[in-house]
Amino acid sequence: MLAEIITIGDELLLGQTVDTNSAWMGGQLAAHGIRVHRITSISDEADAILVALDEALSRVDFVLVTGGLGPTRDDITKETLAAYFGTELVMNDAVLETITNWFSGRGFDMLEANRHQAMLPEACEVLINPRGTAMGMWFEREVDQKVVVSMPGVPYEMKGLMLEEVFPRVDRHWKLPTRYHRTLLTQGVGESYLSELVLEWEERLESRGVSIAYLPAPGQVRVRLSAVDEDAKAAKNRVEVEVAAFLKMAGDYVVSELDESLGSAVVHSLAKQHLTLSTAESCTGGAIAASITSVPGSSKVFKGSVVAYDNHVKETMLGVSSVVLLEHGAVSEAVVCQMALGVKERMGTDYAVATSGVAGPDGGTKEKPVGTVWIALAGPKGVESKCLSLGNNRARNIERSVREALAWIIRTAK
Amino acid sequence: MLAEIITIGDELLLGQTVDTNSAWMGGQLAAHGIRVHRITSISDEADAILVALDEALSRVDFVLVTGGLGPTRDDITKETLAAYFGTELVMNDAVLETITNWFSGRGFDMLEANRHQAMLPEACEVLINPRGTAMGMWFEREVDQKVVVSMPGVPYEMKGLMLEEVFPRVDRHWKLPTRYHRTLLTQGVGESYLSELVLEWEERLESRGVSIAYLPAPGQVRVRLSAVDEDAKAAKNRVEVEVAAFLKMAGDYVVSELDESLGSAVVHSLAKQHLTLSTAESCTGGAIAASITSVPGSSKVFKGSVVAYDNHVKETMLGVSSVVLLEHGAVSEAVVCQMALGVKERMGTDYAVATSGVAGPDGGTKEKPVGTVWIALAGPKGVESKCLSLGNNRARNIERSVREALAWIIRTAK
Repeated sequence: MLAEIITIGDELLLGQTVDTNSAWMGGQLAAHGIRVHRITSISDEADAILVALDEALSRVDFVLVTGGLGPTRDDITKETLAAYFGTELVMNDAVLETITNWFSGRGFDMLEANRHQAMLPEACEVLINPRGTAMGMWFEREVDQKVVVSMPGVPYEMKGLMLEEVFPRVDRHWKLPTRYHRTLLTQGVGESYLSELVLEWEERLESRGVSIAYLPAPGQVRVRLSAVDEDAKAAKNRVEVEVAAFLKMAGDYVVSELDESLGSAVVHSLAKQHLTLSTAESCTGGAIAASITSVPGSSKVFKGSVVAYDNHVKETMLGVSSVVLLEHGAVSEAVVCQMALGVKERMGTDYAVATSGVAGPDGGTKEKPVGTVWIALAGPKGVESKCLSLGNNRARNIERSVREALAWIIRTAK
Repeated sequence: MLAEIITIGDELLLGQTVDTNSAWMGGQLAAHGIRVHRITSISDEADAILVALDEALSRVDFVLVTGGLGPTRDDITKETLAAYFGTELVMNDAVLETITNWFSGRGFDMLEANRHQAMLPEACEVLINPRGTAMGMWFEREVDQKVVVSMPGVPYEMKGLMLEEVFPRVDRHWKLPTRYHRTLLTQGVGESYLSELVLEWEERLESRGVSIAYLPAPGQVRVRLSAVDEDAKAAKNRVEVEVAAFLKMAGDYVVSELDESLGSAVVHSLAKQHLTLSTAESCTGGAIAASITSVPGSSKVFKGSVVAYDNHVKETMLGVSSVVLLEHGAVSEAVVCQMALGVKERMGTDYAVATSGVAGPDGGTKEKPVGTVWIALAGPKGVESKCLSLGNNRARNIERSVREALAWIIRTAK
């Protein structure tokens, strides 16, 4: 089954707000076996809404609309939908009570504009939103039973409505085949090289009822395999067989078999083995630590980091030798190894990773151009190091170095 | 002038990737006086692309397309555009050389699929992309001079092409009135409170030919004032008069008068005063250091950080007293002050900021619920501390804490 998403709001077109709702809805719908055919973002104008709605309903059976339900004058979605479905706004007493309670529970004054939010189209099914004052609406078009759902644009209100109100109604309204998918996280290989590596297998995938998608980001590629079937078990089996085949061919590049970030993969991999980690960061400036500590539960694994931006800090806090710093410079194999060993010893961890490089855009020399990054990994068996030659984009150099470091930890500590 | 954006990729519809490109392009186009009329996301299918292209060109003069230019088989944008504009793919020798150099510079093998990326439509103007192997394309429709631009979906490649190749051509192709804008970064005040504070002034803005936009994010609001005029100087004057008026009313909340990140504002403010900074981070886990070191030139200001996730690290690396830790717990005023003073002394900086809190989602107690975050700032005049009571979303708690800490540094060190 196909659906379309329409997001309403001038702030989306002006670039003041990134539309994160559509991706979330797309993922949730895909998991329910509903494929999003198109996402359209339009302004808060009645004409734009009517045209987009008409176009979407001509193509698909299910249209999800977010935004334009606030109490201010520029929010006109509700009125426009009532007009489209030829119905009137009427006061909904149950909703009025919900909104009144919402305000009194927070000690805020209720304005006339908020009272108006309880005026809802007569011909729709109201989806109660306990998280805010704009309700959801479920419209069914009589002639063909096509459905339009309207929800507020605030992400957490929309998500609550989708999970609690929309999907139960979807399951009752349509009988859908199951979609099963698995995502593998690879690192250290480009999209095109990876695709070439599994070429013959990939060419036969479609005939076996499995589809593949490559999702590249600097230094990593997520590979997603999926199948759709009336029989949930059949879909799962088809995908799992191909996951096993992929792992046989390209398993060396796979750092996680879950759909998770590299930071999360490090935490889960080390936690399973009761191993601990510390970091000593120069050019990555705390970004390795930040990507690990963004993961809930990371304190089980991660002890801490010394961000040694200044050479003096490398000496006093990590025990890097001043002679070695002078002889080799901060961006060198000798220094980065001492950093890793220094933090490992001081924080008493099983593993420690260190970085020192020229992130750019300035600071490069002929011998050590911008993009030169040394990484060291200290573990139970000693310390190893490698040198990356990246480009001259600072943000990207930091990102790539973080990914290299995280993937190296996963590969070594297993 | 109106434009539309078309983003191509199954990953957008499946929710595997959030479309951040459209918001960035929308903002940049708005700054150039071009309003985005609609954003459409579609799948990597020739039919979908052709239909969306036709529809967009029927409505506006300028269509920007991203995505679907990779080397793998599911990338068909280039072939589809060639068909749409009735032209052939031909080998572009200059591009082939660029791509070959791209690979040899990185020591990677070049594949046949990458060679094919140098096959480009004969009737387009090629936009050289030095950041990757997929080139941009500028098509002009003969009959009406409407323009279609195609760019890779990788954000930093797209941004480079937009700034270096697309906008210069836009300026030559269309004669657009000048748009002048200034963005002020405020922190510590909500959008609605800020808007209420300047209400009367804001109501008169439009009649003075200046528009205002509030761009909120957790803990900060960017305020953008802009004016459009044939005469660049007139646009600038109109905006600058209102910037001065805004600063008079709400200047206490303004932490930067440039359109920059808080991390960048910290670096520039301290660098101007020849002051240095270090951080000691527990719940922010390196995110303060990472946001500072993401700024080019931050090494002039920033000496380093101790990410003390583990209590033992707080003692050994920062000199926090074990008695104080035992008596008050890690999330306490006493500990966070010792952390700030400890790192300031050890790294010899003018200022030091420290954090200790319960980021969540677990780990809260009745006395210290999830979202409790202590921040301390040590400077020439001693140490101060404050306690935040945030929510239970880990990522948001880290983000809010980082912003509070950075803004506090700027306000204190001036």
